Amino acid sequence: MAEFVTERQEQHATEAAPERAESPDGAEAAAVLERARASVDPELHAAVDSLPGPIRRIVRYHFGWEYADGSPADGDAGKAVRPALVLAAADALGGPGAHTRAVRAAAAVELVHNFTLLHDDVMDRDTSRRHRPTAWTVFGDAGAILAGDALQALALRLLAEDPHPASAPAAARLAQCVLELCAGQHADTAMEDRAPGEVTLDEVLVMAEAKTGALLGSACALGALYAGAAADEVASLDAFGRQAGLAFQLIDDVIGIWGDPQRTGKPAGADLAARKKSLPVVAALTSGHPAAEELAGLYAGPRVPADADEIARTALAVERAGGRDWAQAEAADRMARAMQELARAVPDPESAGGLLALAEFVTRRSR
Amino acid sequence: MAEFVTERQEQHATEAAPERAESPDGAEAAAVLERARASVDPELHAAVDSLPGPIRRIVRYHFGWEYADGSPADGDAGKAVRPALVLAAADALGGPGAHTRAVRAAAAVELVHNFTLLHDDVMDRDTSRRHRPTAWTVFGDAGAILAGDALQALALRLLAEDPHPASAPAAARLAQCVLELCAGQHADTAMEDRAPGEVTLDEVLVMAEAKTGALLGSACALGALYAGAAADEVASLDAFGRQAGLAFQLIDDVIGIWGDPQRTGKPAGADLAARKKSLPVVAALTSGHPAAEELAGLYAGPRVPADADEIARTALAVERAGGRDWAQAEAADRMARAMQELARAVPDPESAGGLLALAEFVTRRSR
Repeated sequence: MAEFVTERQEQHATEAAPERAESPDGAEAAAVLERARASVDPELHAAVDSLPGPIRRIVRYHFGWEYADGSPADGDAGKAVRPALVLAAADALGGPGAHTRAVRAAAAVELVHNFTLLHDDVMDRDTSRRHRPTAWTVFGDAGAILAGDALQALALRLLAEDPHPASAPAAARLAQCVLELCAGQHADTAMEDRAPGEVTLDEVLVMAEAKTGALLGSACALGALYAGAAADEVASLDAFGRQAGLAFQLIDDVIGIWGDPQRTGKPAGADLAARKKSLPVVAALTSGHPAAEELAGLYAGPRVPADADEIARTALAVERAGGRDWAQAEAADRMARAMQELARAVPDPESAGGLLALAEFVTRRSR
Repeated sequence: MAEFVTERQEQHATEAAPERAESPDGAEAAAVLERARASVDPELHAAVDSLPGPIRRIVRYHFGWEYADGSPADGDAGKAVRPALVLAAADALGGPGAHTRAVRAAAAVELVHNFTLLHDDVMDRDTSRRHRPTAWTVFGDAGAILAGDALQALALRLLAEDPHPASAPAAARLAQCVLELCAGQHADTAMEDRAPGEVTLDEVLVMAEAKTGALLGSACALGALYAGAAADEVASLDAFGRQAGLAFQLIDDVIGIWGDPQRTGKPAGADLAARKKSLPVVAALTSGHPAAEELAGLYAGPRVPADADEIARTALAVERAGGRDWAQAEAADRMARAMQELARAVPDPESAGGLLALAEFVTRRSR
């Protein structure tokens, strides 16, 4: 869920480029992301080049570096938000040079992220990612499963080979994060098969934190570890990333219902047509408001090709039951908590600049 | 392939128990395996208990510790050959206490092994393992994929958290081994779709080494690393495990064709009925012997429910084309190489006792 949604926000950001250019924050985030991409790409390419041939080919396709036939491509490899968080956290808490020393950790986080994308696409039967057919549609389920397995191993090998004193605690933390990602994906998959009325808001929040918050938190924590930060600073950075991740997910869910199709590149209310148990929907369903009953009735109906009238009625029911307001308030609350955690670990706003810009970037569609 | 086959050999070993009791080597191997199981089980249980709830349930079912409904079971968790190799290698090269210090590494190797079993069963659509329905048939593809992902992460987390000075090189080596296992499974899957005449013997040997030899080699290498062995000793132990693993695979392939159905628990010639491109078959097909053409013709036919006459003719063609003799000679050659490597690293036969007994155990059906 989270990843499909990432692209939606990135699409938003891309199509709003002229507007972004006017925003100093947006420009700063773009520069931070660009620097991270430039730092991490050589490490990432070298790591992928060390994979056995047939697996390497699937991975290079997945990253958009090659077409399915193996010819070179210049595709979209994603925005590198997670490596940028690792490097920005290292910058914020380490002295000069911390950024450079944390590049391998940044690559490891990006590899783990892409391992989960490869596997999630198989499980969710998603056919498109980053404007390309997903790896399993091209190389089969076995190819995509093995490429994902290999990327997890590669990520943890990079850290195990890294002489930096933080590499072992970083590897332990990243491996523990994978367990949480697995639990989150499991909860998401299991939720699909349950009646909307049986799902609690708390469950969806826990799932979203595991699927989206955990890796953003770990990215920040790894950067802090590599900067030699104290345990409480590492914990605060982790909490910062988690809370920002949840804010991101809440806003993304709002866009999934009320976003402008011109901007999202998706038909209006696509998430509602798919009967997605997104955060605003579950908040509405469990609100106790009379409109919740109407919404439950609409969600109980069969999934049919989107009917604009019904989708409009569903969106209105979510809004009347308070789902939209709740999600926006909750996102603002999460961002406030993220800022508190960041201020605790990095009191100097200038040092925190990169992390602030990235948090603003992932949640910028809130306004 | 290799794992299905492991069970076949274990079945053999179990059903030949009275015979084994007469063999001092067999009895020694049984004792080594029992000691390893007793050492590694508490570590394994503690690690699995740390998994998130729903994932833990799938893993406990896979290990035979629980039934699908979560009630306690006392199922077959496998023979623990790989953890036993880790511990025997540590014994052989380390002083007193090396065994105890290597228990976490032994658990990590067993977790990696089981991660690959969970994923291989999904890819190969195998419905039975260790006399139980496979995890994906009970918990769905997503459940089995996520449980496998989690076991890989858990294995590498165990090593990352281990304060032993060898834990980082051991983790790097185990992660690199996972890449080779992935490449081996990929080659195996890809081979299934190719015409028998297109597959070379060298390709099948490389595939078998990657799928079976690599993890047996890594198990021995990790034990050596944990014993503080020198780099050349670690390399020799890895080569010992690899060569023994290949010998094991060759013998298992022979059993898959000429094994006694009473002992294997499989119909005679099951591998031939499934048109498996096993080592004796590919050796026969590429032999240049006139019988190879007859074999190619038989393998080109449709896969139909086993016809005893046709299977007998196919087995005879493999034998006449030299496939059986080649496999047995090659297995003996691999075992000789394994013994040379072991003698190089561990000249004292008494210290090497555990490793010798295990090598004899995995290849004992050769006689």
